[in-house]
Amino acid sequence: MIETIHVNLNNYSYNIYIGEYIFNNMFISSIFLKNKNNVLITNKKIEKKILKNKNQYFYKILNKIHYFSINDGENYKNLYEVEKIISFLLNNLYGRDLNLIALGGGVIGDITGFVASIFQRGVNFFQIPTTLLSQVDASIGGKAGVNHILGKNMIGSFWQPKGVFIDIKFLSTLPKKELLSGIAEIIKYAIVFDKIFFIWLENNLFKVLNLQKKELLYCIKKCCELKVKIIENDEKEIGNRVFLNLGHSFAHAIETFTGYGKWLHGNAVSVGIIMSSYLSFYLKYLKKSELLNIINIFNNIGLPIIGPSTMLPLDYLKLMMRDKKVINKNLRLVIPVSIGKVKLISSIKENILLDSITACQERRFFS
Amino acid sequence: MIETIHVNLNNYSYNIYIGEYIFNNMFISSIFLKNKNNVLITNKKIEKKILKNKNQYFYKILNKIHYFSINDGENYKNLYEVEKIISFLLNNLYGRDLNLIALGGGVIGDITGFVASIFQRGVNFFQIPTTLLSQVDASIGGKAGVNHILGKNMIGSFWQPKGVFIDIKFLSTLPKKELLSGIAEIIKYAIVFDKIFFIWLENNLFKVLNLQKKELLYCIKKCCELKVKIIENDEKEIGNRVFLNLGHSFAHAIETFTGYGKWLHGNAVSVGIIMSSYLSFYLKYLKKSELLNIINIFNNIGLPIIGPSTMLPLDYLKLMMRDKKVINKNLRLVIPVSIGKVKLISSIKENILLDSITACQERRFFS
Repeated sequence: MIETIHVNLNNYSYNIYIGEYIFNNMFISSIFLKNKNNVLITNKKIEKKILKNKNQYFYKILNKIHYFSINDGENYKNLYEVEKIISFLLNNLYGRDLNLIALGGGVIGDITGFVASIFQRGVNFFQIPTTLLSQVDASIGGKAGVNHILGKNMIGSFWQPKGVFIDIKFLSTLPKKELLSGIAEIIKYAIVFDKIFFIWLENNLFKVLNLQKKELLYCIKKCCELKVKIIENDEKEIGNRVFLNLGHSFAHAIETFTGYGKWLHGNAVSVGIIMSSYLSFYLKYLKKSELLNIINIFNNIGLPIIGPSTMLPLDYLKLMMRDKKVINKNLRLVIPVSIGKVKLISSIKENILLDSITACQERRFFS
Repeated sequence: MIETIHVNLNNYSYNIYIGEYIFNNMFISSIFLKNKNNVLITNKKIEKKILKNKNQYFYKILNKIHYFSINDGENYKNLYEVEKIISFLLNNLYGRDLNLIALGGGVIGDITGFVASIFQRGVNFFQIPTTLLSQVDASIGGKAGVNHILGKNMIGSFWQPKGVFIDIKFLSTLPKKELLSGIAEIIKYAIVFDKIFFIWLENNLFKVLNLQKKELLYCIKKCCELKVKIIENDEKEIGNRVFLNLGHSFAHAIETFTGYGKWLHGNAVSVGIIMSSYLSFYLKYLKKSELLNIINIFNNIGLPIIGPSTMLPLDYLKLMMRDKKVINKNLRLVIPVSIGKVKLISSIKENILLDSITACQERRFFS
């Protein structure tokens, strides 16, 4: 069975299809087979593991599409690769009637969406997310972009896909550490929106990590639904969409500091959420017991709870001042006030932020 | 007196202000003086001639704004300069509350608008066009973008400014050849939309070129009004906006072939319009007498009527197949069917196009 979630954005509405073996469905496979102007963007690793793997059921569909592979990894999510993709498209005389298809994780989805938004001033694109992280988060909502050496996702646009195709069969091609990275974003949704989901995750996270079909599909669908609800009300992140950034100001600082790709995004998000939670506790919003629940859910599944040892509190501060949530040189941060509820705070005193980061790095939350 | 034209695009509406000494107006000058987050983008030539020129009346306003200069010329309208501007903005900790201000001609306007559309997924921007070409055309309508080595304006977006400030005082800083280049786009509007305006131009073009205030302001306002009417109905060029591209498929081929900046845009447009007009005559749409009227208006004012001698008809064809109007590898071209009326044609036979270009290069229209 294929579950369908409709994303209602007026002229830019689309469907998310979720299931197993979804490319066996005639309607879905026809989207990828009927059109001569489809170009699939992927990376060299996925090309080998998925696109050219004759043992995979989707081979017979995906292998028929004209494709272009970029290098694998977050450190290739930059303007240079964007130009390479555009050169490929122009050399092959693709025009405004092109449909780009992103086959891959967050990096491929973000860069393909961005190319779609700027190639000849905008063309259609589809998302086929192949990682848990991109299936629950990155592929939905139209945030597209690339990194700049001075900050993550600093160059980008809002550009909605024409459809998102989530097949859990892809997840069996993933190494455990990539699955874990996706789990961090799943936990984020629960902390931001839904205490009951958080409790469900405390009991079922290992089943999700072991790709047990029922729990996995429930979990992916739940996250998609939560995200869609937010996006329908605030596509351009003027209001509540900012809540989805819980932990991300810290996380982006870690990813930028260590060099893109060194820390998996989900791992950085895990540390980032713990830092925001500790800050909230420090500011007397979050209860100690809930802080510990948050730390434990990440810790128990094997996600990191402290940042890189080489990174000093001042390094965080400096990089976080370039965060997209900074307004008038004033840092704004999302923090959980309880499990299932967050708020946006601003005018945070520097010393409070520094103290709070230091306390986290010294694991003082356990004391 | 300042004339105001309102551009009605719902959430993205804005005003165009046209006049002389418009920065002496309190309301307008306050926009540029009150905001701490303004950054002006310009080029090194304009920096010297306008921004830092104490003899110019606008010095006292524009000189107070934080600015960044790129190199001058169409050959710098590329992703590399885009990245340089973004680095400047990030190094100076500008965030989503930034207002970019384009001070310059089409290149500065296009690149600044494009940076505005992708910096942190989009920030506000204003246009202060300083050339005739950008005052009548490039600064209005939200087409932003940069060139790719394989084609002009192949990378870009639709991103509307928050205001356009047209001051004819800037035009006295321009060399004659730059003014002439702008004249070509003015003639374009007349051929596309308005035979009476065409006749007015036949009689008044030299006054415009000599910057006679009354004729100049009339002409700029007329062009802005014609363009605004089209944009309000078709912002994203799904319908009639394509008519504004009269001559541009040929023109972009010339600019790409000769190397960006070698041929001024307006000069290439002049040749392009003559080539489309000749094609229309060849296809028995346009009358010979009107073809000659079109050629003469360009020729009399001193605009080129034939393309570069080094460029063969096949060179045009090859580059034109990368035009943004190509759909399903089928070239579509705008041609005038009479003065004041154009149509979009497709499925043009290669040999007809080649013959028609050859005839133009051999000036056969005069025979």
